[in-house]
Amino acid sequence: MLCIGLDTDVERLPSSVGGSLSGLVEFNRRIVEATSDICCGYKLNWAFYEQYGSAGIAAIEQTLTFIPDSIITIADAKRGDIGNTSAAYAKTFFQEFRCDAVTVAPYMGYDSVQPFLEYADAMTFVLALTSNKGSEDFQRLPVGGKPLYQHVMETALGWTRDSNIGFVVGATHPQELAALRTIAPTSPFLIPGIGAQGGDIEAIVHANNGAPALINASRAVIYASQDNNFAEKAREAASELNRELNSNNAHKHAHILTHT
Amino acid sequence: MLCIGLDTDVERLPSSVGGSLSGLVEFNRRIVEATSDICCGYKLNWAFYEQYGSAGIAAIEQTLTFIPDSIITIADAKRGDIGNTSAAYAKTFFQEFRCDAVTVAPYMGYDSVQPFLEYADAMTFVLALTSNKGSEDFQRLPVGGKPLYQHVMETALGWTRDSNIGFVVGATHPQELAALRTIAPTSPFLIPGIGAQGGDIEAIVHANNGAPALINASRAVIYASQDNNFAEKAREAASELNRELNSNNAHKHAHILTHT
Repeated sequence: MLCIGLDTDVERLPSSVGGSLSGLVEFNRRIVEATSDICCGYKLNWAFYEQYGSAGIAAIEQTLTFIPDSIITIADAKRGDIGNTSAAYAKTFFQEFRCDAVTVAPYMGYDSVQPFLEYADAMTFVLALTSNKGSEDFQRLPVGGKPLYQHVMETALGWTRDSNIGFVVGATHPQELAALRTIAPTSPFLIPGIGAQGGDIEAIVHANNGAPALINASRAVIYASQDNNFAEKAREAASELNRELNSNNAHKHAHILTHT
Repeated sequence: MLCIGLDTDVERLPSSVGGSLSGLVEFNRRIVEATSDICCGYKLNWAFYEQYGSAGIAAIEQTLTFIPDSIITIADAKRGDIGNTSAAYAKTFFQEFRCDAVTVAPYMGYDSVQPFLEYADAMTFVLALTSNKGSEDFQRLPVGGKPLYQHVMETALGWTRDSNIGFVVGATHPQELAALRTIAPTSPFLIPGIGAQGGDIEAIVHANNGAPALINASRAVIYASQDNNFAEKAREAASELNRELNSNNAHKHAHILTHT
């Protein structure tokens, strides 16, 4: 179930690869090489690359060439706009970058998400309850006796007959995750927030109840060491997370999200 | 008050500039040259460029060099993520691309918007009530007796003491705009949706009540003609929109949003 977040920051690269975009690409190459047999996906956080303009986007393009076809690639982009614009975003992530999945923001409603859902072979993860503190501000507001994030999930489940819609639920909310699994027992969930953000693996795996999920760690894996051995240490950190995920999941009938 | 949306699509370029990214850049150059003295801002919709990968982002970089410093540039990007990620997005638009304003999605709450607000000299337009049909799905949900979009606006107004927060309110909702002007009488509004999306200029200017606003038209201006004279026809379309905006605004004490 482990997904590794390539939220790679030029400012945090080990000195052995250097603090440049080419160093970032080399860093990503070595992280992927060291971990691709022990994870099921890589999540690329677009912001960390966009901040370097077109050269940063070229670093994404190069990084994607290192990832084996059998591994899921997730564009963590949180896009969403009016219909013709969301169609261009869907084309961006599914055709231009050939990612397998994307994260989208629900605020603008059906026609902002529907263009992504037209790609039946790709996964669209709609934000439901995010891992950050700001998730309290609007996502938990009561709407007709239930929180907005639950309303978002129930509504979005009606948007497609395909099984290509999933949800982002932060690892910092295990109780709410358990409740959401009663609403969407078989939808794939992307669960960020273990590691640096403090989500509890045991509680999350239990709450997820063996359903399909990608559980993401970013900084806890890729920055496991700042030394020359960063790739080896990233592999160790990923292996340890895998052990924790699998030992907690062993008694469940785990349905691992498989590459479509 | 007129803002022109450079939602330029390679598929819709006049044959005289050709259907390529270099044609797109030349198209933008000629549109800017023909209209920069009769508008106060250009809104670049990131999706239309991102769909071509790093080369598309390079087309944004080139386009921005054509826009005079005195004209507001708006990155219509609708970003929003956890704190450290939103900080990278803020750096993207305000430092890397040196845009004057950005649009952000509110769903993830305070810490997803705050990194943008740290740029005191830049404008952050938070989505409130968008112009599309999907605005019905969540934005209008009742929360404690008022619609979510009103709750978003009231909450976001408490996020900064600076005057660098504004709101996106679609031109397709003049009645709601009038009501929102009682909550945020002096905040800058970015009002898209006139032209192709059908917003009524007279109703919008009246509802805006002379407050600071950028009223955006995209397709109605840049695709005014498919012929060689596209730039001249774009200028005519922009001039006509200006006339309509100004004649309706004449009796108001208009505060035009000025470049910071």
